[in-house]
Amino acid sequence: MAKEFMGKDFLLNNEAAVRMYEAAEKMPIFDWHCHLSPKEIYENKEPADIAELWLGGDHYKWRAMRSCGVEEKYITGKDTAGYEKFKAFASCMPSLIGNPMYHWCHLELRRYFGIEDILNADSADAIWKKANAAIKAGGFTPRELIAKSNVACVCTTDDPADSLEYHQLLAKENLPFKVLPAYRPDKALGIEMPAFLPWLSDMEKRAGTAINSFAKLCEVLKDRIDFFASLGCRATDHAFAYVPCEEADAEELEAIFASAKAGAKVTDEQADKYKTALLRFLAAEYAKRDMVMELHIGPMRNNNTKMFREIGPDAGFDSLDDQLIARKLSRFLDSLAVNDNLPRTILFTLNPKDNYVLGSMLGNFQGPEAESKIQFGSAWWFNDNIDGMREQMKALGNLGALAKFVGMVTDSRSFVSYPRHEYFRRIMCNLLGEFVENGEYPFDEKALCKIAEDISFNNACKYFGLN
Amino acid sequence: MAKEFMGKDFLLNNEAAVRMYEAAEKMPIFDWHCHLSPKEIYENKEPADIAELWLGGDHYKWRAMRSCGVEEKYITGKDTAGYEKFKAFASCMPSLIGNPMYHWCHLELRRYFGIEDILNADSADAIWKKANAAIKAGGFTPRELIAKSNVACVCTTDDPADSLEYHQLLAKENLPFKVLPAYRPDKALGIEMPAFLPWLSDMEKRAGTAINSFAKLCEVLKDRIDFFASLGCRATDHAFAYVPCEEADAEELEAIFASAKAGAKVTDEQADKYKTALLRFLAAEYAKRDMVMELHIGPMRNNNTKMFREIGPDAGFDSLDDQLIARKLSRFLDSLAVNDNLPRTILFTLNPKDNYVLGSMLGNFQGPEAESKIQFGSAWWFNDNIDGMREQMKALGNLGALAKFVGMVTDSRSFVSYPRHEYFRRIMCNLLGEFVENGEYPFDEKALCKIAEDISFNNACKYFGLN
Amino acid sequence: MAKEFMGKDFLLNNEAAVRMYEAAEKMPIFDWHCHLSPKEIYENKEPADIAELWLGGDHYKWRAMRSCGVEEKYITGKDTAGYEKFKAFASCMPSLIGNPMYHWCHLELRRYFGIEDILNADSADAIWKKANAAIKAGGFTPRELIAKSNVACVCTTDDPADSLEYHQLLAKENLPFKVLPAYRPDKALGIEMPAFLPWLSDMEKRAGTAINSFAKLCEVLKDRIDFFASLGCRATDHAFAYVPCEEADAEELEAIFASAKAGAKVTDEQADKYKTALLRFLAAEYAKRDMVMELHIGPMRNNNTKMFREIGPDAGFDSLDDQLIARKLSRFLDSLAVNDNLPRTILFTLNPKDNYVLGSMLGNFQGPEAESKIQFGSAWWFNDNIDGMREQMKALGNLGALAKFVGMVTDSRSFVSYPRHEYFRRIMCNLLGEFVENGEYPFDEKALCKIAEDISFNNACKYFGLN
Repeated sequence: MAKEFMGKDFLLNNEAAVRMYEAAEKMPIFDWHCHLSPKEIYENKEPADIAELWLGGDHYKWRAMRSCGVEEKYITGKDTAGYEKFKAFASCMPSLIGNPMYHWCHLELRRYFGIEDILNADSADAIWKKANAAIKAGGFTPRELIAKSNVACVCTTDDPADSLEYHQLLAKENLPFKVLPAYRPDKALGIEMPAFLPWLSDMEKRAGTAINSFAKLCEVLKDRIDFFASLGCRATDHAFAYVPCEEADAEELEAIFASAKAGAKVTDEQADKYKTALLRFLAAEYAKRDMVMELHIGPMRNNNTKMFREIGPDAGFDSLDDQLIARKLSRFLDSLAVNDNLPRTILFTLNPKDNYVLGSMLGNFQGPEAESKIQFGSAWWFNDNIDGMREQMKALGNLGALAKFVGMVTDSRSFVSYPRHEYFRRIMCNLLGEFVENGEYPFDEKALCKIAEDISFNNACKYFGLN
Repeated sequence: MAKEFMGKDFLLNNEAAVRMYEAAEKMPIFDWHCHLSPKEIYENKEPADIAELWLGGDHYKWRAMRSCGVEEKYITGKDTAGYEKFKAFASCMPSLIGNPMYHWCHLELRRYFGIEDILNADSADAIWKKANAAIKAGGFTPRELIAKSNVACVCTTDDPADSLEYHQLLAKENLPFKVLPAYRPDKALGIEMPAFLPWLSDMEKRAGTAINSFAKLCEVLKDRIDFFASLGCRATDHAFAYVPCEEADAEELEAIFASAKAGAKVTDEQADKYKTALLRFLAAEYAKRDMVMELHIGPMRNNNTKMFREIGPDAGFDSLDDQLIARKLSRFLDSLAVNDNLPRTILFTLNPKDNYVLGSMLGNFQGPEAESKIQFGSAWWFNDNIDGMREQMKALGNLGALAKFVGMVTDSRSFVSYPRHEYFRRIMCNLLGEFVENGEYPFDEKALCKIAEDISFNNACKYFGLN
Repeated sequence: MAKEFMGKDFLLNNEAAVRMYEAAEKMPIFDWHCHLSPKEIYENKEPADIAELWLGGDHYKWRAMRSCGVEEKYITGKDTAGYEKFKAFASCMPSLIGNPMYHWCHLELRRYFGIEDILNADSADAIWKKANAAIKAGGFTPRELIAKSNVACVCTTDDPADSLEYHQLLAKENLPFKVLPAYRPDKALGIEMPAFLPWLSDMEKRAGTAINSFAKLCEVLKDRIDFFASLGCRATDHAFAYVPCEEADAEELEAIFASAKAGAKVTDEQADKYKTALLRFLAAEYAKRDMVMELHIGPMRNNNTKMFREIGPDAGFDSLDDQLIARKLSRFLDSLAVNDNLPRTILFTLNPKDNYVLGSMLGNFQGPEAESKIQFGSAWWFNDNIDGMREQMKALGNLGALAKFVGMVTDSRSFVSYPRHEYFRRIMCNLLGEFVENGEYPFDEKALCKIAEDISFNNACKYFGLN
């Protein structure tokens, strides 16, 4: 007989999984990588309605709607009423069979709104009313949503040139959860991008100094690491199509920087040399401070020029790249390790074909500084679904020490995406439970629950040094 | 207890799947991509025996026999009796455990011949007799087989230089199914191939004009699109190791064309420039006519020179390429989209490592012209099996709107390969049913059956504009 | 209810699998590719304790320990007591949930020591005592372990410059199993590696002649093939990141060789030309002698320079490469086939993304010299786990003739790794049994057991010509 839709044992298909999840669900959330806005957390405004909450900025939902042939005006149109957007989205839902969006939305309706109805064109009106009544009744400010989700700590994503003013303000509030900045120098690394010179100018203003050399840039970025650290920063993050590893001496690096600053076009080779040197410098600084270096490998962004012009970045027009990554990544990590500059590092891949490349790369560079010092990051973005999570965890299980995994992050811009941790924990407990069910691991409930708790929360706390 | 071999609920392992398949199996077949011969449909000859029907041209079976060490004379030998070939093939069957061929053959024996025996060396003689008796009793002409298979429409694969004479003749017959041409300009695109100049010469004859420039070629090909359209053509098809995207101006394109026409060797770069420009031109023409552009990515053909010399192409000596495809494909599709020239497009990959590259590429270029305007083509050729189909559908489910999928094609040269649609439908219903079984989708029988019917038939009709 | 941990029906989850495994488990082992030391087999020394047996040279275990953050002194430290290492390893075990190491260790404890306890920090002391008592009681010499494991034949891995003195000595012993050399000319092929010139010097001494030309090298290597063959060698082995295929004439090859011998740096292109020519020459010689050519594609070795300096190669610092392999491999194999020089060939991939590339490559080059003359090698090294084996076998099933598969090898340096054959056979029987369970293959017990026996042992004997 078919299981109840999203019932109590949703995704838990064996006894061991049920037991493990009982332990896992009690654990707090440490969301060590997300894109929540510290400003929004500080300002703590209530959403106007579920359309604003759900459809205001969620490019996952936008993509889903476009896949169903919905006109753009019902997706990102400025003049379209929230109700119409919500209705259009609701009508798409039944077509999203097999899509994590289907589960995320229904989990959010259940966990935050207490609504157990199935969302579709027929139920849209009733749910619109119930959800908005719930919002009106209160409890939907960012801080309330975070607290209600049992979140212990959130790491946002912040540019080195950012003032962190909202982080400073939040630090003075007596919040029941931590909000820490994370250091994301992507614009500093992206010397070949149009955003580089404007960023450099911002950075100069923030630093109160001209940045006329590569050496000076390094110095400024190092100061910012210290500033971030002073506000509790434990995590750094970097995105790459592939992690480069091209050698250049100081003179050449200065020439590349000077040329870019003068507005000249940067070649691919120059960009790779610059990025290699800068990331190496930064990694060494992270290592000194026991900060974690996250490497997100594989996105191919802004593929649709027309829509980019109309809507801008992060609007659902990104996909997977398929570059060769193994050799350069190995050489880059080795160049850190050989000089004892390799920080705790989390390797993420967006292209699931590389699960085994990353999963086996870890083992080359482990060290006694942490349990699984080099981590395989959880299934991310296009892989943030049942299949993707299972494949990532099975690869990690086969190739490393799964019980030491630092687990899930939301990677989200939404304050109601914490049920993705629930989703992950159910999938994780079910997978581990399958090993038990099949006689591949002993049914030692205490040991199993500890593993589930560790992957859910404890490992990440220990790894990031969260007190 | 083990399920009955290929019983009523073959591949249907949950209740929802059984219900959905009851709906799906009633739907007609729209086989919008195959390699059936319009000439053979027109001439409508009966096969001499099951050896001719099965082993006359099916390179899947030939490969399977070679994998078992069978001598070539029993495979493609001109002077070997059909009985001997059939016997050799039957002897291989038990070794094909886990191969879709095992299921295809037994489905064909059951659905067309009413033979439920297991095919192997021992049963070969009896089946040879029964099958040939059935053929002799009639009902095995191409038209009868197509009609018996509940096919509403077949799209063949035709060269722009083809006269389409058999399509014209068929259009005058009062057939219970449609036979439409599909436009496959691979020879026009393959400027670097030995077949290019002979093809150009044929094309000139067909067009009744010299083709002395790239511009003239475009004009001629455009006329052929109109001619194909006049006979009901809705689909176009193109095969690539990777979809190129190299820029060249009109002058350079003319120089490349002139050089090729003069018999000079075409470099890889020249070929990519030419192909980019020509496919862009064609795509814009398809878009104007609401025709569908299929892109089949990934084959590596004619790997065995010795056997190519002996037997020729399409004889079972092809395999998978592993080129990088993401960036160029993105740039090519974007170059169409930015000019509003992007037609409905179906992306196929032969290398399953690229399921997520294609599945996520779709979302970059969707539009309101169709539900899932950019489609992820069904698991194809070497992936046309249970694992391949499941992986393709799970990727599409995770990344897009699975309920809008245009579904299966036979891609076959055989008139008895329609049970592959049955095979697909069972696998599709079973996968969707698993979601229900696991509580991942509500058991809403009406909604589920509609999805099954849509993927089986309705979506493709709507997408291709089949009336 | 969860299955008993590693009970009688471990990994056998359906009735057909249980029946098939009853047949499979009785078959002897033909371990046609491993890294056992013929010297150690000849000298036949007992291990001092389970620490020496398990942790003396097993880089799989070392990696697992490093993944758990164990200090290197407890892993490879020269001055650390075996007990301390064993204890450290035991403490890591519970974290290896989902790792094949967890099963291998417990299988070894059960099959060789009769210990059914679960290994962890708590049980470490008791197991240490029991295991060492068992060793002391006898039966743990290499020859006893091999015989006890029902091994019919072992093929070691030997350099062409090796004297094979231990093979000669072993041939005179009256052993209950065969020990044959396998020809592994990796150092001869690795012209770009630091080890090349020292190897060349060794080879000259062994051959008793100067090797001053590429032609002379070929001649010497050919003589060594004959020498290996005289001692029963049936298998040859070669490792590549990708199989190269670059043309060069005799003059250029001699220039490359001369330059390398003079100590000049060899470019990538030169190395590929040299390797192509040398492997082509060798392959033709293998083909003449009906020897098998194994191609292991995909490792990326010695990634950690610091640890390489400290510990050396084969110490757990290798991982997966991700080069493009399809085109060159196709061209290389074709260049053999077109000249009738293609030997029986087994293609292995370390990167599972290439399962379908290799699985479909086979079909291009099959021939009547053997059933599945071109084989898809079993899941290897980082894929030597349940998922990897299933994926490899499913790919082979979908693309070839699974029943003709030559099956498992240990690829191991340990005398207690034969339970990996048991592990493989259980996984194989379970997969085939699933086909039956699901109605995808008839429950013909006799036929199924024959397939299981063939894949376990008979196919390899036939393929390698083992009498």
